[in-house]
Amino acid sequence: MPDHNFHKRSAALTLEQIIRLTGAELSKGSDPSVQIKDVAPLETAGSGDLTFLDNVKYKDQFARTKAAACIVRPELAALAPKGIHLLLSAVPYKAYALAAQAFYPDTMSRAHIASGAVIDSSAQLGEGCVIEEGAVIGAHVKLGKQCHVGANVVIGNHVTIGDHGRIGANAVLSHALIGAHVRIYPGVCIGQDGFGFAPDPKGHVKVPQLGRVMIEDHVEIGANSTVDRGSGPDTVIGQGTWIDNMVQIAHNVKIGRGCMIAAQCGIAGSTVIGDFTAMGGQVGVSGHLVVGKNVRIAAKSGVTRNIPDGEEYMGYPAMPMKQYLRGVALLNRLIKKEKSS
Amino acid sequence: MPDHNFHKRSAALTLEQIIRLTGAELSKGSDPSVQIKDVAPLETAGSGDLTFLDNVKYKDQFARTKAAACIVRPELAALAPKGIHLLLSAVPYKAYALAAQAFYPDTMSRAHIASGAVIDSSAQLGEGCVIEEGAVIGAHVKLGKQCHVGANVVIGNHVTIGDHGRIGANAVLSHALIGAHVRIYPGVCIGQDGFGFAPDPKGHVKVPQLGRVMIEDHVEIGANSTVDRGSGPDTVIGQGTWIDNMVQIAHNVKIGRGCMIAAQCGIAGSTVIGDFTAMGGQVGVSGHLVVGKNVRIAAKSGVTRNIPDGEEYMGYPAMPMKQYLRGVALLNRLIKKEKSS
Amino acid sequence: MPDHNFHKRSAALTLEQIIRLTGAELSKGSDPSVQIKDVAPLETAGSGDLTFLDNVKYKDQFARTKAAACIVRPELAALAPKGIHLLLSAVPYKAYALAAQAFYPDTMSRAHIASGAVIDSSAQLGEGCVIEEGAVIGAHVKLGKQCHVGANVVIGNHVTIGDHGRIGANAVLSHALIGAHVRIYPGVCIGQDGFGFAPDPKGHVKVPQLGRVMIEDHVEIGANSTVDRGSGPDTVIGQGTWIDNMVQIAHNVKIGRGCMIAAQCGIAGSTVIGDFTAMGGQVGVSGHLVVGKNVRIAAKSGVTRNIPDGEEYMGYPAMPMKQYLRGVALLNRLIKKEKSS
Repeated sequence: MPDHNFHKRSAALTLEQIIRLTGAELSKGSDPSVQIKDVAPLETAGSGDLTFLDNVKYKDQFARTKAAACIVRPELAALAPKGIHLLLSAVPYKAYALAAQAFYPDTMSRAHIASGAVIDSSAQLGEGCVIEEGAVIGAHVKLGKQCHVGANVVIGNHVTIGDHGRIGANAVLSHALIGAHVRIYPGVCIGQDGFGFAPDPKGHVKVPQLGRVMIEDHVEIGANSTVDRGSGPDTVIGQGTWIDNMVQIAHNVKIGRGCMIAAQCGIAGSTVIGDFTAMGGQVGVSGHLVVGKNVRIAAKSGVTRNIPDGEEYMGYPAMPMKQYLRGVALLNRLIKKEKSS
Repeated sequence: MPDHNFHKRSAALTLEQIIRLTGAELSKGSDPSVQIKDVAPLETAGSGDLTFLDNVKYKDQFARTKAAACIVRPELAALAPKGIHLLLSAVPYKAYALAAQAFYPDTMSRAHIASGAVIDSSAQLGEGCVIEEGAVIGAHVKLGKQCHVGANVVIGNHVTIGDHGRIGANAVLSHALIGAHVRIYPGVCIGQDGFGFAPDPKGHVKVPQLGRVMIEDHVEIGANSTVDRGSGPDTVIGQGTWIDNMVQIAHNVKIGRGCMIAAQCGIAGSTVIGDFTAMGGQVGVSGHLVVGKNVRIAAKSGVTRNIPDGEEYMGYPAMPMKQYLRGVALLNRLIKKEKSS
Repeated sequence: MPDHNFHKRSAALTLEQIIRLTGAELSKGSDPSVQIKDVAPLETAGSGDLTFLDNVKYKDQFARTKAAACIVRPELAALAPKGIHLLLSAVPYKAYALAAQAFYPDTMSRAHIASGAVIDSSAQLGEGCVIEEGAVIGAHVKLGKQCHVGANVVIGNHVTIGDHGRIGANAVLSHALIGAHVRIYPGVCIGQDGFGFAPDPKGHVKVPQLGRVMIEDHVEIGANSTVDRGSGPDTVIGQGTWIDNMVQIAHNVKIGRGCMIAAQCGIAGSTVIGDFTAMGGQVGVSGHLVVGKNVRIAAKSGVTRNIPDGEEYMGYPAMPMKQYLRGVALLNRLIKKEKSS
């Protein structure tokens, strides 16, 4: 059960209400009026709890769960313990997410502006904004409705943030136009100068960084990540892209819609990433490349060439995943052969 | 000699006092009443200074050192310059650490709360706490005795920190229960949402992150690191584990006791790391893995499978270190053969 | 055209003025009195704009550009579109940088100290400093002339910063002596304890970190980077070195002059890096190594041995770049052979 000091739970829901929220179907014989009070993992769920099974690897935990109800794929329903109510879904993790959102809604605090926040008189704040202590908001900044600006956040002149923006504590934003429903985590730095200079033995010569950062709607950017502004063109992060912690996005990078970028990735300057592309953690992508749509790049890969749409890449230099793994396997066979000879 | 603007030195100590503090033994003929005023590296140490030799690689510097006294392994004593006092120890680096702590004790400032700190009236602060300017401390926060909260730190509602906690400037903490003698460095972000969502072409669906971060006693977490809270289970960092700068700990990770994790490592969601395991810098560990106790993982490795207790791993995908190095050597031999043919 | 909300443009310049600023020469038949109003990339430049061609890869864009004038190498002048004025230079990117600096000068705000900044009475501030809201400046800090200290920056006791220093918002500095014309980006942490301890199963023993961070003139350090202070010796960053975002510099590291270190690199303790050495992104360098001058290390490499002056290295463990790439090619040939047999 979540720690209710940190996580505020809403009222109980019936299974009927939950299937309406999640699009799941109730299995035969389940009672739609059953009350569910909370969500919990398979192992710790008890009576009154809703749980889910997404990965067949956890089927033994499913068989033993004490949960009142479980969201599960139809084909795994047969493995259920006796007496459990089943909610059948082709996308149980998504259905669970929607149910959990209902029990633990992402509520805003009541609108208020902390007395210790410093807001330039020319800034415009939409209705219902919360501005926490120590936040510093520059001239001509525009915030949409229901924005939450965390403590000690610094927002530079002329930055705009759409409705329902959430800016985590100690984040720093400048030179950025940000859409609606964007969530910036604590410690993120957005809009600073890119790494642009003409190398020179007498002293590198700085190239003024004259672009912006454009962040479309429904983007998330994880804690302590950095997004440099463009050098002339803009740096762009497309709608619905999720970025994990400590990711580096260099100047002029364009990231498409719906991408998933795990922690500690770095994308070098002017590279373009297509829609719905996914990267594991610690991937590096060189500058001036084009990575296609729906590409999957394994964690820790180093991408040095363009990647066509739909490919799976791995390694350093990154190559088609099968080729990389074949190389690893071949080398291991050669080692064994050598040892035995 | 340390810059005494930055580092406050205590009074001189006799060799007698130092051997009591460090567990070292004085070599024959050394005078226990000799006064030592400071610590210094082999090369720059002078009269009145204590130094140490830990790595035999530096034996030439040892032979030339002007230090008054040196902590050294008994088997290296014969290499000492004339006239030096020797403190014999099987663990000279540890003995040096204890001596250096005596000369440069980690003292707290006098208790005070800066006038510009903002502390919720429901927060409880133990005796002797120092709260610096601009710190923002939320509702129901509990701090133990002698805690030091740096400038512009943000601590969210209901966080607890045990006695002698040190929170570096600009760190952000939420959803966390923290033990005693924990040291969080500047810019660290703890307790934010993990990277949890159901991918969906119509827009990824956020999975509420309903866990906490549990940090046991005597943990250190380096500057600008990030520790996400659990998604349902908690994220746990075990007693006495030391974590370097810019390390990413994802949701639900459990790290055992006494681990050593160098800079820029990343540990993906739900992975379990056993006690006293050590990782070099920039290691990545995939999610949902079990890494054993006393494992050593070479810098930059990418761990994609479970690792049994006591193993040494290297490479990407990580494999036993000997196997990886054999592969590198074999490939280099094949290249040479090809060139010469 | 840059967004003039974010980037303030100066007055127009004649080509005559521009060639004097940049050292370029006007091509035959170009009119030195032509007025230029702005700078822009090849593709978006229009009448009144100055652009540049540095990389021959973009020659088609050059042939189509609508710019009024273009900085270009003499040997590429023949590819120019009709009617354009050419500024010939052997270093067009540098010449462009100088011109762009003239159109978008890096001006300081008028001197002021925000009412919400907290400055110890013993601190000394040079003429013309700007101190933003929420900055916390400790005892005996010395700032040179024309320094800019961003919002919520924290500067510890006795830190000194030379003339024209720029400290980005939410940066944290301690135990550091910093030269003139140094630019520290937002979220950077400088001067905290290095990762120094004697490992011990009963609890690792902290080694007091008794050094400083010395940053020479004209250094840049990118957002959210971390630079630990020395353990006894100092950590040193040489004159004119440029460091990108999220780079980790461990205790006692000495970096020479004019180095270029891309994002997410990590340099382990006590390593020495020679002048003008360049590292791609995500490079790791082990501790206690010596890397020579004018070395080039490919992105993502893991350096485990000393590197002589002037070498190009790649891979993990890093080796001469040609050798690494030959190994990759050889392995790929072996795979193909195996598949076809």
